[in-house]
Amino acid sequence: MGKIRSHIVYKTKKYKRNTQLSFIRNTNEDSASSLYLCAMKIGILGGGQLGRMLLQAAANYQVDTYVLENDQDCPAAHLCHHFTLGDIKDYEAVYRFGKCLDAITVEIENVNVDALEQLEKEGVKVFPAPSVLRIIKNKILQKQYYQQNEIPSAAFVVTHSKDDLQKHTDFLPAVHKLGEGGYDGRGVQLIGTAAEMEKGFDAPGVLEKMVKIDKEIAITVAIASTGELKLFPPVQMHFDQDLNLLDYQLCPAELTKSVLWKAEAVAQAAAKHFKSPGLFAVELFIDADGNVFVNETAPRVHNSGHHTIEGHYSSQFDMLWRIMLGYPLGNTDAILPSVMVNIIGANGFSGPAVYEGLEEVLKIDNAFLHIYGKKLTKPGRKMGHVTVLSQEKQDLLHKANKIKNLIKVRT
Amino acid sequence: MGKIRSHIVYKTKKYKRNTQLSFIRNTNEDSASSLYLCAMKIGILGGGQLGRMLLQAAANYQVDTYVLENDQDCPAAHLCHHFTLGDIKDYEAVYRFGKCLDAITVEIENVNVDALEQLEKEGVKVFPAPSVLRIIKNKILQKQYYQQNEIPSAAFVVTHSKDDLQKHTDFLPAVHKLGEGGYDGRGVQLIGTAAEMEKGFDAPGVLEKMVKIDKEIAITVAIASTGELKLFPPVQMHFDQDLNLLDYQLCPAELTKSVLWKAEAVAQAAAKHFKSPGLFAVELFIDADGNVFVNETAPRVHNSGHHTIEGHYSSQFDMLWRIMLGYPLGNTDAILPSVMVNIIGANGFSGPAVYEGLEEVLKIDNAFLHIYGKKLTKPGRKMGHVTVLSQEKQDLLHKANKIKNLIKVRT
Repeated sequence: MGKIRSHIVYKTKKYKRNTQLSFIRNTNEDSASSLYLCAMKIGILGGGQLGRMLLQAAANYQVDTYVLENDQDCPAAHLCHHFTLGDIKDYEAVYRFGKCLDAITVEIENVNVDALEQLEKEGVKVFPAPSVLRIIKNKILQKQYYQQNEIPSAAFVVTHSKDDLQKHTDFLPAVHKLGEGGYDGRGVQLIGTAAEMEKGFDAPGVLEKMVKIDKEIAITVAIASTGELKLFPPVQMHFDQDLNLLDYQLCPAELTKSVLWKAEAVAQAAAKHFKSPGLFAVELFIDADGNVFVNETAPRVHNSGHHTIEGHYSSQFDMLWRIMLGYPLGNTDAILPSVMVNIIGANGFSGPAVYEGLEEVLKIDNAFLHIYGKKLTKPGRKMGHVTVLSQEKQDLLHKANKIKNLIKVRT
Repeated sequence: MGKIRSHIVYKTKKYKRNTQLSFIRNTNEDSASSLYLCAMKIGILGGGQLGRMLLQAAANYQVDTYVLENDQDCPAAHLCHHFTLGDIKDYEAVYRFGKCLDAITVEIENVNVDALEQLEKEGVKVFPAPSVLRIIKNKILQKQYYQQNEIPSAAFVVTHSKDDLQKHTDFLPAVHKLGEGGYDGRGVQLIGTAAEMEKGFDAPGVLEKMVKIDKEIAITVAIASTGELKLFPPVQMHFDQDLNLLDYQLCPAELTKSVLWKAEAVAQAAAKHFKSPGLFAVELFIDADGNVFVNETAPRVHNSGHHTIEGHYSSQFDMLWRIMLGYPLGNTDAILPSVMVNIIGANGFSGPAVYEGLEEVLKIDNAFLHIYGKKLTKPGRKMGHVTVLSQEKQDLLHKANKIKNLIKVRT
């Protein structure tokens, strides 16, 4: 196979030892088998629950893991080989963190993209490509991306300020989305009438025409560096209207065949036009006529894929490692249907977290508990999740409700 | 609920930070809910693949994890909150490691039991109790334990030396087992004829009458501190005759109902008489007449339970955390039948490991790969495993064979 081997000196930092180990590295990067000869060094920007679950999955492979996060008590800090304290939004911090890595991925879009672009130029593989992050982290660019690529999404206008927003009363009812910085329901405002226009953001954003949503689903698309592409089955989301936080999600979503095919085609197109390997969680609206619209895309592991850990042959976390390590894509099929419930910090409580009801949840014989290890709770904070597996939809819904009522995160 | 709360100052060591965080701790230890108020500190003696998989499962809970091992590159080192370099067989190392922990468990029996007994006296919870380790780490005491508790196991005599061994030719064909220090097929010698007696060990051991084995199975027994007890379904083992290493294991084992009940009763008795909470992997022989004999017991997570990670609702690793954290026991039911194949270092190769055939294995759509991250391979070393899930036994056996032929660990 014409393997070329060279020695690379490798130094671990964590235990401050002085010994150096040298490993054989195959420099023939076209060959997937090169990856078997040494551990790739792969970093994650962000150390929250997504990083935590990525690192749980990483331990099934031979890979040296790195995390950059400005909180050394973050959920992922203790699960990596090398933890670096630093700000993922800071150019220097991201560049220094990434420059000795083979590959890098993100847990959140809100990272320093300039640094990632420089790293990409210097040969570090970035999942997704920095160009994708640049588009997705700005809701204006993201909407324009869908428009340019003829991917169905709600009609929109770009708004530059609150004054500007007032010009578009003809668009109501609509959703105003902040261009940059929104996350988990923040930076999104429903505007039903002209009188409510003042609730909009006084900063660049998009005003999207309200879609009459019949169903809200998400499809995760996995794209390998080879171009190989696989779709996870769609999940159906049910949201808490107050916080705009996920209430529970069901997999597979209940769709007619024609809607399923449309949704899969739209999700695939939404991910493919980025021309980047990676994992893409495409959130879709379906209206009463069966029309499919992209809501938004997360180019990374995502809350909508947590059920895949136990419910699917390859989880979203396993899949991203396969993509980054150059392995074949995994099997996205469900082992069993599932429901996933987020564990959310209760309203009115901020401080050291106390979990009530865990014991009762742990008695449910087809439930899988995940606590993210965050020391502090606050209203709406994602503190964990529970997945239930069952052939019976009624069993899934019954347990999801039971779990939601049992678990309370307080102080 | 009459909770009494006190503040405990907690300091992390790993990142050498200076900040101190104080957490609320419930000192009412009788209440399981006390465990939800703060993270328990739990240590593992040993940092191999069992520790690695324990720590992958630990990240589903709120627990501060500690590992003691004399190799800072060991498979578990990077997955814990606090890694301590030290010898698990050394009194001082084990005592110092354990004295500030809430609970401690082992990855291997060959640890310093004196230190664990002292820690137990000082209130550290040890899983399993040190008295169990004292019995199990010595094959003579282990056989006497089965005998005293009327648990069926092969007839035996205690032998003190090679000279002593010669007196028992009437016992042949037999198996000679070294009293202390055997592991993974080492310290076990088949003796068919008087001429072969010289292959025996010149140290204290047991000579066991050969059982005509029809089937070899293992049953993992989980015992909570409350006395709650659950059995995992039996797995059937197929061994490589040359290395006495596991070839593949199938779950559930194919047993008649009467043999199943007998095996479950024997496994339960073998574990219960230790009078200790913990996880017990009971290895059993079944002869052609359906008689069941205990071969030996491992009071810990064990190779025979690896398939439970994907194949069962609660894995053996999840189950041990539930036991240590005072949670209800998990559901031992299988989600699907499974086969597990160990990935073993090939004969004739010692040095930095190269994995051949991983890519082909990763294409198998119902296979789950686990690489343990050991830098160095040697003949017979456990380097990883693969679990396959399927409703079809033929699919399981076909894939097990395929995987065994595909994967080679060389240098």
